[in-house]
Amino acid sequence: MKQRRIHMPYVTVQMLEGRTEEQRKALIEKVTDAVVETTGATREKVVVFIEDIDKRNYGVGGKRLID
Amino acid sequence: MKQRRIHMPYVTVQMLEGRTEEQRKALIEKVTDAVVETTGATREKVVVFIEDIDKRNYGVGGKRLID
Amino acid sequence: MKQRRIHMPYVTVQMLEGRTEEQRKALIEKVTDAVVETTGATREKVVVFIEDIDKRNYGVGGKRLID
Amino acid sequence: MKQRRIHMPYVTVQMLEGRTEEQRKALIEKVTDAVVETTGATREKVVVFIEDIDKRNYGVGGKRLID
Amino acid sequence: MKQRRIHMPYVTVQMLEGRTEEQRKALIEKVTDAVVETTGATREKVVVFIEDIDKRNYGVGGKRLID
Amino acid sequence: MKQRRIHMPYVTVQMLEGRTEEQRKALIEKVTDAVVETTGATREKVVVFIEDIDKRNYGVGGKRLID
Repeated sequence: MKQRRIHMPYVTVQMLEGRTEEQRKALIEKVTDAVVETTGATREKVVVFIEDIDKRNYGVGGKRLID
Repeated sequence: MKQRRIHMPYVTVQMLEGRTEEQRKALIEKVTDAVVETTGATREKVVVFIEDIDKRNYGVGGKRLID
Repeated sequence: MKQRRIHMPYVTVQMLEGRTEEQRKALIEKVTDAVVETTGATREKVVVFIEDIDKRNYGVGGKRLID
Repeated sequence: MKQRRIHMPYVTVQMLEGRTEEQRKALIEKVTDAVVETTGATREKVVVFIEDIDKRNYGVGGKRLID
Repeated sequence: MKQRRIHMPYVTVQMLEGRTEEQRKALIEKVTDAVVETTGATREKVVVFIEDIDKRNYGVGGKRLID
Repeated sequence: MKQRRIHMPYVTVQMLEGRTEEQRKALIEKVTDAVVETTGATREKVVVFIEDIDKRNYGVGGKRLID
């Protein structure tokens, strides 16, 4: 039987810039744990991306945090 | 002092379709836990989206799972 | 001189499902107006996508609206 | 009665890099206005992200603007 | 030596709805070929997603195709 | 008859940082070829974005490549 690897889920975390390396590392590890625990995905199949958001490029209620 | 709420992080989980309601509910809860624990975000600020991926619209290594 | 058209900006609006056709139509029109007014983009170059979010697939603070 | 805040819509604007601070600020403000006007969302619930696109990473018709 | 699999690139294709199964299948295959040829990625590492865009949810120049 | 240009498909390629200019250029060209060949889209309507992923912001199986 031919077997193809199913790579999923894919998790993207958008966060304001400024997180430390330790936070990034722990975030990826613990989010992966959560996905494995709740969906039954094989651990090695879980992919996590972090996207740093520049404070100049983010607004809530029509205003940026820096204005 | 005027205070503006900072809503972040935003988490998107792309998964193949077919997850149960219980899995969706638990996924959102546990991923939120993981984000709060590792980034120090206020719990109520964490947003999670799930995107169901149609098996017809997903391929690894140039092949879809259904072909 | 060869001229290549620059198509941008691209705007994606993620909204909970349930918006009417009139709301969708007006949203695309008015968001385009806002982008043209503030960035100087040529109107015909502005692209808007709407993504409907299923209430089952969205949570704030670790909980879905439907739970 | 417990009340949970519904944070949406989420708007992402992808634009070629090079916009000024004033353009970014105005873009977020006016797009938020447009979303509130057309969807009835509470102003403070509207979130806008800007994503700057590097000219090296964008092509139309198979060609980049810089080639 | 411990080896971890590097799964990338991830390709997302947003298209108006209405493509046939044959088109989807061929699109995933040929886009994968293109990525492998130009980036040197291992074929089995390339992931392709297709996102169908509803005609009601897409506008250019402030207008939807259906209006 | 009024004619509006339909700009699609939109392709986003997420790749680990470090690709050369030649690779970026070729990737955009060949992915565009693949989309035109398989979907019948007019070449000038195909848009390709590349997103460089920082090695610090990407993990598979709960671990980053750099840890």
